[in-house]
Amino acid sequence: MASVERELHDWLRQQIDDSTSSSVLLGVGDDAAVIQGQTCPAVVSTDTIAQGTHFLVAEHSLELIGRKSLAVNLSDIAAMGAKPRTILLHWLLPDDFTLEQAKSLFFGVQQLADQYNVHVVGGDTNCWSGGLVVGATVLGGVESANAAWRISGASSGDAIFVSGRFGGSILGHHLTFDPAVELAAALGKLNVVAAATDASDSLASDLNAMAIASGCGAEITLDRIPIADGAFQLARESVHDSSDALAVKQQAIDHALFDGEDFGLILAIPESKISILDANDSVARQLTRIGTFVSQQGLWTRKADGALEAIEPKGYDH
Amino acid sequence: MASVERELHDWLRQQIDDSTSSSVLLGVGDDAAVIQGQTCPAVVSTDTIAQGTHFLVAEHSLELIGRKSLAVNLSDIAAMGAKPRTILLHWLLPDDFTLEQAKSLFFGVQQLADQYNVHVVGGDTNCWSGGLVVGATVLGGVESANAAWRISGASSGDAIFVSGRFGGSILGHHLTFDPAVELAAALGKLNVVAAATDASDSLASDLNAMAIASGCGAEITLDRIPIADGAFQLARESVHDSSDALAVKQQAIDHALFDGEDFGLILAIPESKISILDANDSVARQLTRIGTFVSQQGLWTRKADGALEAIEPKGYDH
Repeated sequence: MASVERELHDWLRQQIDDSTSSSVLLGVGDDAAVIQGQTCPAVVSTDTIAQGTHFLVAEHSLELIGRKSLAVNLSDIAAMGAKPRTILLHWLLPDDFTLEQAKSLFFGVQQLADQYNVHVVGGDTNCWSGGLVVGATVLGGVESANAAWRISGASSGDAIFVSGRFGGSILGHHLTFDPAVELAAALGKLNVVAAATDASDSLASDLNAMAIASGCGAEITLDRIPIADGAFQLARESVHDSSDALAVKQQAIDHALFDGEDFGLILAIPESKISILDANDSVARQLTRIGTFVSQQGLWTRKADGALEAIEPKGYDH
Repeated sequence: MASVERELHDWLRQQIDDSTSSSVLLGVGDDAAVIQGQTCPAVVSTDTIAQGTHFLVAEHSLELIGRKSLAVNLSDIAAMGAKPRTILLHWLLPDDFTLEQAKSLFFGVQQLADQYNVHVVGGDTNCWSGGLVVGATVLGGVESANAAWRISGASSGDAIFVSGRFGGSILGHHLTFDPAVELAAALGKLNVVAAATDASDSLASDLNAMAIASGCGAEITLDRIPIADGAFQLARESVHDSSDALAVKQQAIDHALFDGEDFGLILAIPESKISILDANDSVARQLTRIGTFVSQQGLWTRKADGALEAIEPKGYDH
């Protein structure tokens, strides 16, 4: 074990001893962590982000990189309608990484973990000759197996709702986004969600995956997609004449459809349950209906002449 | 998502659908896995192995690399006295990795998983510009929080037992070792273990860590350490005169003490419980007593003249 690894282990142990919850029976410092059993089903997500693919060490702060490694996992847990409980970290640090740098990484994780009352219970850190790799595994719970939101639960006729705004996340949102943990908890109480996923590859790609998994198609109205400021900014930079508002908007919609790492929820909500949603303003105003799941397989939008046009379900290729 | 990633996801989904157990409520293909709750405490381990540090793609087969990624985690779970249940994989694959290569990696995981009746329930795979990174998180269970073997549970007077043989694992054992899952289960039934860890850094380093965590020291008899053939082989290659049996043996003991990745168990067993162990021959013959935990902090051996000599608790630096 390299000496920075040992120092880091000792330091992490102190940090984590201070932050464990009553459900953590044994945390960092042993061969594995021991956490309290739960009779409800466990929901487990793992996601790893890597230098050059999901972040750039030269451009992004280590705090934000650490934050993102947890946020992407919390987003997955939220997309299952589950409540996150505990975190394991798995890091590969470049050989020249310093203890101070590792601390910055950890502070980024810790700050977000505190925000959602989730606890780091253990992990694994190694130094190596390669780039920075920051992984996390998050354990959570749902009240029953049926309460977990499957990607495959949509039916033709269900409304398509999304949370957040889409496109241009590469300008910063992919590092700073808030995972939809609280929104998922509120929606869980309303019991209105038939299927869910989070937009990580892209709105088009993930919605299409949801439709395929559910054995149906999806028709969306492009004008209803909530477009992020970043998408407009990229659009203005790329169109020939940035005063051409229509061209800018069309380009921004493309960013909203096909850029990745927005991490909003994509939800199927049966028509019969929309009234429940509407009666809960604090939840309803975080969601936008962008279309409807349909029987015809594929991803569609309707042109001005009423004909269906296919949308290519492409996503962000890191 | 790169196309090999997508192909791999589809392929993994098929593999894993076929192998899920009744405790897996929702496996690969959704944002997270859902597994049955358990009232007993959960034990969670994560370990990642990386190209150049823990294996060499040019020298080692991908099946053995995949196998090792799971074996190191099962070893940690065994060292807690826990039973492994489910696995999440987290892989970073070099950009030029093929689907066939990824399948080989998975087969190595799967074969060992089948051996111990553990189930892959999900994971995360990404392509990137760096080297191969093969991580796994294993969830298991213990009957009660007190049933988990802590590294800190040893007391002065407890016997030090080890399983397996030590040294020279770099010649192959680090890839092919069997984690002590079954031995741990058998020892758990006997209720004789006061503290445990597995020898991953080195026998000297991990035994020392156990003594420090337990607030005591450890005295071992060097002649009692079970030495692996690999340690003798390395010793013969390194001593000036390989027919000098004493020099070879001394060198082999050094390998047994300080080489890493042997993955035997290191156990503290109270003297009062040794008779229980002795009455169970099938368990007892897998263990060797190498010394005793003592009140004087440090790692010690006794010289011919009866004086204590300190052993440096150094380990394998990858």
